[in-house]
Amino acid sequence: MKVVFFGDVVGEVGREALRLSIPKIRSFYQPDFILANGENAAGGNGITPKITYEFLRLGIDVITLGDHAWDQKEIISFIQDEPRLLRPINYPPRTPGEGYIIVKGNGKKLAVVCAMGRTFMLPQTENPFLICKKIVTELKKETPCIFVDFHAEATSEKIAFGRYLDGEVSAVVGTHTHVQTADETIFPGGTAYITDVGFCGAHNSVIGREIAPIIHRYTTLLPTKFILATENPRTDGIFVEIDEESGKAKKIERIQLSLSLS
Amino acid sequence: MKVVFFGDVVGEVGREALRLSIPKIRSFYQPDFILANGENAAGGNGITPKITYEFLRLGIDVITLGDHAWDQKEIISFIQDEPRLLRPINYPPRTPGEGYIIVKGNGKKLAVVCAMGRTFMLPQTENPFLICKKIVTELKKETPCIFVDFHAEATSEKIAFGRYLDGEVSAVVGTHTHVQTADETIFPGGTAYITDVGFCGAHNSVIGREIAPIIHRYTTLLPTKFILATENPRTDGIFVEIDEESGKAKKIERIQLSLSLS
Amino acid sequence: MKVVFFGDVVGEVGREALRLSIPKIRSFYQPDFILANGENAAGGNGITPKITYEFLRLGIDVITLGDHAWDQKEIISFIQDEPRLLRPINYPPRTPGEGYIIVKGNGKKLAVVCAMGRTFMLPQTENPFLICKKIVTELKKETPCIFVDFHAEATSEKIAFGRYLDGEVSAVVGTHTHVQTADETIFPGGTAYITDVGFCGAHNSVIGREIAPIIHRYTTLLPTKFILATENPRTDGIFVEIDEESGKAKKIERIQLSLSLS
Amino acid sequence: MKVVFFGDVVGEVGREALRLSIPKIRSFYQPDFILANGENAAGGNGITPKITYEFLRLGIDVITLGDHAWDQKEIISFIQDEPRLLRPINYPPRTPGEGYIIVKGNGKKLAVVCAMGRTFMLPQTENPFLICKKIVTELKKETPCIFVDFHAEATSEKIAFGRYLDGEVSAVVGTHTHVQTADETIFPGGTAYITDVGFCGAHNSVIGREIAPIIHRYTTLLPTKFILATENPRTDGIFVEIDEESGKAKKIERIQLSLSLS
Ligand SMILES: [Fe+2]
Ligand SMILES: [Fe+2]
Ligand SMILES: [Fe+2]
Ligand SMILES: [Fe+2]
Ligand SMILES: [Fe+2]
Ligand SMILES: [Fe+2]
Ligand SMILES: [Fe+2]
Ligand SMILES: [Fe+2]
Repeated sequence: MKVVFFGDVVGEVGREALRLSIPKIRSFYQPDFILANGENAAGGNGITPKITYEFLRLGIDVITLGDHAWDQKEIISFIQDEPRLLRPINYPPRTPGEGYIIVKGNGKKLAVVCAMGRTFMLPQTENPFLICKKIVTELKKETPCIFVDFHAEATSEKIAFGRYLDGEVSAVVGTHTHVQTADETIFPGGTAYITDVGFCGAHNSVIGREIAPIIHRYTTLLPTKFILATENPRTDGIFVEIDEESGKAKKIERIQLSLSLS
Repeated sequence: MKVVFFGDVVGEVGREALRLSIPKIRSFYQPDFILANGENAAGGNGITPKITYEFLRLGIDVITLGDHAWDQKEIISFIQDEPRLLRPINYPPRTPGEGYIIVKGNGKKLAVVCAMGRTFMLPQTENPFLICKKIVTELKKETPCIFVDFHAEATSEKIAFGRYLDGEVSAVVGTHTHVQTADETIFPGGTAYITDVGFCGAHNSVIGREIAPIIHRYTTLLPTKFILATENPRTDGIFVEIDEESGKAKKIERIQLSLSLS
Repeated sequence: MKVVFFGDVVGEVGREALRLSIPKIRSFYQPDFILANGENAAGGNGITPKITYEFLRLGIDVITLGDHAWDQKEIISFIQDEPRLLRPINYPPRTPGEGYIIVKGNGKKLAVVCAMGRTFMLPQTENPFLICKKIVTELKKETPCIFVDFHAEATSEKIAFGRYLDGEVSAVVGTHTHVQTADETIFPGGTAYITDVGFCGAHNSVIGREIAPIIHRYTTLLPTKFILATENPRTDGIFVEIDEESGKAKKIERIQLSLSLS
Repeated sequence: MKVVFFGDVVGEVGREALRLSIPKIRSFYQPDFILANGENAAGGNGITPKITYEFLRLGIDVITLGDHAWDQKEIISFIQDEPRLLRPINYPPRTPGEGYIIVKGNGKKLAVVCAMGRTFMLPQTENPFLICKKIVTELKKETPCIFVDFHAEATSEKIAFGRYLDGEVSAVVGTHTHVQTADETIFPGGTAYITDVGFCGAHNSVIGREIAPIIHRYTTLLPTKFILATENPRTDGIFVEIDEESGKAKKIERIQLSLSLS
């Protein structure tokens, strides 16, 4: 089974870059499933129902979220009706929406889980280690192929989480820092891992935003309006090939696809 | 001018990996200067005078530090006598030691600066943006070749810092997360940049430490004694080539050198 | 029912002050139960088995803890055998020890709960609001008289927590900041409340520690060895009178008892 | 010299309570100067030029601010023209506005300083200890009577700051937590001190806001719109009497003034 996952899609430039990437990615990688993190899709802040449908029409099978999940208010009710949009699984009990789904296609079954780290994040969420171990045990009854987006900041927490699930899931890929790391690997137990996939959007920027206001903020501490950057569109992603019988990863490859929008 | 910089050297395995790497690096890259971040050299926690001399004997020209700078108490007095050991420049006025140095060799002059980020770090330090701009203005009177180790956590702060100094210095390389990033580049103004260089030490680990105790900590919250890992020694570094006239970077290349200790 | 609760007992001076206070408090308030927070009893850091017994011999019925619960390693096993020593209830499932107890005396029954806030604390603990609501529902089957020590930093979280349990428990008293607040009150539902009880120890200090090293730390950021202060011993506490039938608070009074040790 | 200082004025209820309090306070305490922290005066978030004038017309001599200083955008330019409105002195160099002022009245001269803590606050601000020591040395050339509002969260930092300036200034009073503490005292060097003055506004609330939305936030982690409370208006303040020759405090008294608005 072949899976492509795109890192945080940031704003209109990110969505446009995604739209242009998908045909190229399809022809090159022949993925069975395409996933994307959409937490910054709506002008950098969360996702709307309209943009969710836009993603689904592009052929994205599952959209994961992160700390920006609730930035757009309408999502609180919308997410209850759209199971392909996942919020982090470790929000408290009774939070709207779900943090996992099993999708089917080409006669194959892939479970996707979205979880969020706590260090330097929203630390009051439930323990992602314990919750994910539990849900993975359930999901394995349905399919050995499990793909986890771990949206987190600290490298220590991300690597520990990946090692913790090594042998239990097919892939743990990190998101949130918007910078792709060079540590893609397959752990001894067969789990594909990367600390961060990166982001889709304007790369002549500070993680997708215009440079000057960010510098203004860091040098003055005054409140500053951030705006999205537009130059150097690129999609960052990861390709993982999974053995369908065992659920073990066979290959992991980094993707950085530069595009010219016009 | 050719410079090689090694990411955080972690413990005895990291030091041994460094020792074995240097001859290979010398013959392959022919560096004029070799730099290393030594903040985790002493069992993961800071550096001692003895280990400082060990680094210098290996041919390291300058050692930078970070948030672990003061873990070993003797450093507070030692650093005042050893100018090749740099603590982050943005500690308060009157802190022992210095955060920059100009080194000479092969008829060439390189300024090295060590600075520390504030987001998710020790945020009470002085503003690294403002302090570095000031010192860089001074240093440029001596040499256009300036190499900055920015020891920081948040990708946003690191990229903003690199962009802020773009055109002012030859290179800004990040350290502290212990995970090498895949975003090495030369910014439009001529500054070589990478968000994180990675670390030197045992890579079958969580950023250099044994995996199991870290997972115990994340799953129980109980205090846990961390121990250093020993398997899969590797040195992570970065190579930067600088035009000596202009101080602009001509090339930046990531280094990941696996070694077998025995 | 009359209850006296002492704020965080800090080190030897705090324990000695407690020892001298108890007879005075007994004769003045005639308490049915005496409780104390012991998280700083062992030299400022946690509590030992020996000091636990010292507290019990003084007539303390229940000892609560906080973020310093595990500072002394032996506590991890000891707490499993000593139910009168409570660690915060919102540690993860399977943490050693318990966070509540029902004690009996004079034909009366008092439930005591120890919980910890998350804002500016150890935020990865479980949600204290949800956990306490649940346990309180259970405890009310046994007794309407329930006394909660909420060990937390942020005033907003402490007041919200007290308001949340208003009408469910007899008292919510805050600890951890070591500064007694002047907002003791009985909420409309009948729950006695104070944001912080204060601490027992040397008050010519910074929250129990010598002043000079703390100032050194704030002015230099260098690591500093903190030592306990010795001057101006005082016990801070709170007196609550509870209607035994309804569990509602009838009275709350602040205690600040200065002592001369010699 | 007699000075009354009011804690954080929160929203319209706080302003109305302040308006009703001032005549009572004037006749009872006969203050030479009245000061107030206005960081929450505009609907809880910062202060506007219009509300600044409202305060001045009520007879407030100096208005201090805190972490909410810049919530209302117009303040960035307005504060440059209105020296009686103080932002924390430890913002970076070149920040608009000032952090101190000397006011005169009844033939007396009082220096007022506004500073902000860093622990659990905006830690990237400059070191308030070092900056205040410096400015105080300057101000003492003009008058020995110096009143400092230290807007901070952590009790440790607040007490250390007060002890650090003991003997240098007439008073250090804390703000920001919105809960009045019961530790008002005069330190050995003659500096009046209290960890927190409290706030002016609706006290049937969580630090001035409606209770239910705050509880919703703590129990669900979902984004929640906070609204200001309206019941139980009260002004919290502090009265300090200062010896004009020496600048030493002679008396410190807590104020809690309940009012009925109608
Ligand atoms: Fe993101
Ligand atoms: Fe994120
Ligand atoms: Fe490090
Ligand atoms: Fe570090
Ligand atoms: Fe304590
Ligand atoms: Fe505590
Ligand atoms: Fe406030
Ligand atoms: Fe504030």
